[in-house]
This record gives sequence, C-alpha cells and structure tokens, in this order.
Amino acid sequence: LVIVGEKINSSNKKVASALEKRDGEYIQKLAKEQAEAGVDYIDVNAGIFGDQEAELLTWLVETVQAYVLKPCCIDSPNPYALKKALEVHHGRALINSLTGEKERQEKIIPLVNYHQAKVVVLCLGEKGIPETADERVQIASSVIDLLMQEGTPLSDIYIDPLVQPIATSPSAALISLEVIEKIKNLYNGVHTICGISNISYGLPLRRIINAHFLTMAMSRGLDSAIIDPCDPLIISSLMATDALTGSDSYCLKYISAFRKGRIK
Amino acid sequence: LVIVGEKINSSNKKVASALEKRDGEYIQKLAKEQAEAGVDYIDVNAGIFGDQEAELLTWLVETVQAYVLKPCCIDSPNPYALKKALEVHHGRALINSLTGEKERQEKIIPLVNYHQAKVVVLCLGEKGIPETADERVQIASSVIDLLMQEGTPLSDIYIDPLVQPIATSPSAALISLEVIEKIKNLYNGVHTICGISNISYGLPLRRIINAHFLTMAMSRGLDSAIIDPCDPLIISSLMATDALTGSDSYCLKYISAFRKGRIK
Repeated sequence: LVIVGEKINSSNKKVASALEKRDGEYIQKLAKEQAEAGVDYIDVNAGIFGDQEAELLTWLVETVQAYVLKPCCIDSPNPYALKKALEVHHGRALINSLTGEKERQEKIIPLVNYHQAKVVVLCLGEKGIPETADERVQIASSVIDLLMQEGTPLSDIYIDPLVQPIATSPSAALISLEVIEKIKNLYNGVHTICGISNISYGLPLRRIINAHFLTMAMSRGLDSAIIDPCDPLIISSLMATDALTGSDSYCLKYISAFRKGRIK
Repeated sequence: LVIVGEKINSSNKKVASALEKRDGEYIQKLAKEQAEAGVDYIDVNAGIFGDQEAELLTWLVETVQAYVLKPCCIDSPNPYALKKALEVHHGRALINSLTGEKERQEKIIPLVNYHQAKVVVLCLGEKGIPETADERVQIASSVIDLLMQEGTPLSDIYIDPLVQPIATSPSAALISLEVIEKIKNLYNGVHTICGISNISYGLPLRRIINAHFLTMAMSRGLDSAIIDPCDPLIISSLMATDALTGSDSYCLKYISAFRKGRIK
C-alpha cells in the first residue's frame, strides 16, 4: 500500500492552531511520527484559511521537508495555493486534487506537467459527485485520457472514488468498492486511492469502521490510502490484509509487525 | 449473518477435559454465553474421542439443549455419530458435514432427508481438497445437484470453501473468497459458510487475522460463519461490515452494539 499520512490537516483543531501560531515544532513532530510509521507521502492541508491558504500551505511544505525526507501530498482545490506550494517542494509531490471540472483542469494540469507531479483525480464532475459507480468511472476515464494525452503516465495517476459517510449514505462504501474494482479492470497500472476516514463521519468508534473499510477496499484493489499511520487498528487492517491477499507471503511482515508491537 | 458458535469443540483442551469428566455445567456455561451473544446454532464436536465420539456427541446435544433453546451444528465426519446425535436433537439441526465423497454421501444424505436437517457441504472430493477455486466449485455444484434431486431445498445447503491456514498456503484466503463469490453467482439462495479461525492457524494474534478475513468474506457474499461470538474483534468486524455493506442501514445496529459495549 502507498500510504499518505493524514495528520497535518487544518480541519484538525490542534493543527489549525499550530498554523495560526506558525508552530513549526508541532508540525514537525507530526511529520516525524508519520515518517517513522513508514508513510510514503505526508499530506499537508491548510484549507480552512481562505486568503492565507497559499502562504500557509507553502509554509507547511517547507516546515515538513526541512525536517523529514519525504514528498508531500499537497492537498488543496485551489490552483494558486498548489502552485506556490509546488514551487518550494523538493522531489515529486502528489497533487490532491484534480477533478472532472474543466476550470480546475485548465489550471492544474499545467502544474502536473511542469513539476512532473503525481496527481489524485476525484470522481467529481461539473454537476458534483455522481450517485452511481458507473458515472464516477466515466469521469475518471475522461480525466485519465486527458492526462495521458498531456504526457502523464498511468502510474502517476491516483483515482479517488470519493468516499461519503455511510451514516447518511448507506451504499457509500459499496459504490467506492465498485469504482475501485472497475477502474482497476479498465486501466492496468493506474492507482486507486481513498481518504479512508470519511466513511465513518458521524459514527462512534470511527477507527473500527475505518479499519474494516480499508480491509474491504484493499481486497478489491485499493493500492493507496490517506490514513492515520499511527493507529494500531489501521496498521492491523493493513498487515492482516496483506497477509490474507498474498501480498505478504508466509506472513513475514505480519509477524515482524507483531514482534515490534505495531499491531494489537 | 447466520452465526454458528464454535466454542464447544473437543480440539479445545478445556472442552476435552469437560467431556472426559462429563462436566455438563462447563458445557452449559459455554452454550449459555454463546446463546446470549446471539448465535443461531451451537456447534458441538467430540471428534478427538474415536470410539466414544457417538456417545459423547449425543451427550453434548442433550446437555446443550437441556439448557438453551437453540439448534446445534452437529460437527462430525462420522455418519454413525451424526445419526445418534440427530436422534436426540430437537428442532432442525445443521449437519457438519457432507463432502463430494461417495461413501460419506450414501450414509449422510439419508440422515439429511429423514431429519429434514440443514447441511454443510465441504468442497472436498475423493482426492482430497482441490488446489483451485474452480475445482472446489465443481465439487460443490455436484453435491448441490445431488441434494436437490433428493429434495433438499437450496436454502438448507451451506457451502464451505474449506479454509486453509495462510501461514502455509499464501493464496488460501483468495481461493476461499473466489469460491464464495462464484457459488453465490451460480446458485441464488444457497448459503456459504466458513470456519473462520482456520485461516490464522500458526500465526500470532490470530483474532486480528480472523476478524479481517471475516470482513473480506462477508463483503464477497459469505452469509454464515463458524466463529467465537464472544470475541469483540469478531463482533466489531461483523457490525462494521454490516454497516459498510448496507445490511445495517443508517448503522442502527452498529450504534446499538456500541452502546451495549459489544464492540471496542
């Protein structure tokens, strides 16, 4: 699994407060614990700050990368904020995100090309999030085709089915699983990605729902996820699922994670 | 999910010792805690006792049913032991199990018919357990056809793909999932069942592997399982999976299980 560590997100109150105070130490602590947990990307988000977003997102990238040697997942719908953050980023970032919306594409695809970035594509079009899996797959297909025409290889594209909360949309998980499976069958080599914790919004013991949704999604072909890499339930799901799906032959990684006390 | 409580099994040392001493109280305690946890069937197994199996299995059925109002899953490959246990059983038992083996069929199918019992069919033939999912589906199909000819409705048949340990067979879980999905597509109304804990034999923290295997299997169509109904990890998997697959609309059962402290 390609792991994006979700912790540096301004929707979290402590992170928001650290951003207001430019508390680099707190941000670097979150970056370090996620890097040590083995993430591939560190998500950075300053979405709640409106006019200040570009400046704060840039500060997050600099603060994180001054401390850990990891690329960032730069998380913003705002092309200007993405542009400024990409300018200071070292290595190949994961841009989060592009959609089926024309205006966003016109501004973000040039950034993907210029920085040779990888890119998350949300299955969302001009009319919002489609109800059915097939409509979402259609949007993903059209964006994949466009990106490939512009020179982005399939292996740099991460399709996000858009996970909605099951508390209000009972078929939300099933729709996501269907999109993942269909995209994997249609495009050999493309990645699929989910913001796992959206699924449990509004429920008690969210970590349990998150962990079992990750298990289901991985068993359908999900190969990347935005998760809390320090949550033992999530790590248990990940290790158990790799062992169960044959990605961890003879369970050597699982046994090693057990010995290190990472699962419980 | 149709739940078969697995605890009264002679492969467990305490159960074996209770059987030797005819300690009915201990057996009834296990029956009661499983009944209270909401199982549909109580598994009874005296398989390690050789010549005494028929007598002990009969005693188990009597001991359990004297105390709880649940049917048993009568667990034995031995037609004579099954016959004796069925003679004292009240209600419709689940016979565990029939296979693709001719000799076993000739002796067990008449018991299924006479007692109008439900029956577990293991995907195992004259030459043992086949390697591939397709061969297992073939065995299941031939036994289903035979049972239906003899008058057993599809809804009384429970197909068990035969779960082998992933510690020694890395593709064991994938094969089981494939059998479950294929059987569900071929026969509308037939049940699928697994002895979940076999998957984790030889591994540390077996309960974690068991719980995530249950999640995967349920998301592919598993509708019955032989499990420990008192294990909070198993109950968490079950409740989370029902919520995620839309079987528990608006997560009402999940929230109620949380309030009762059944998941954690």
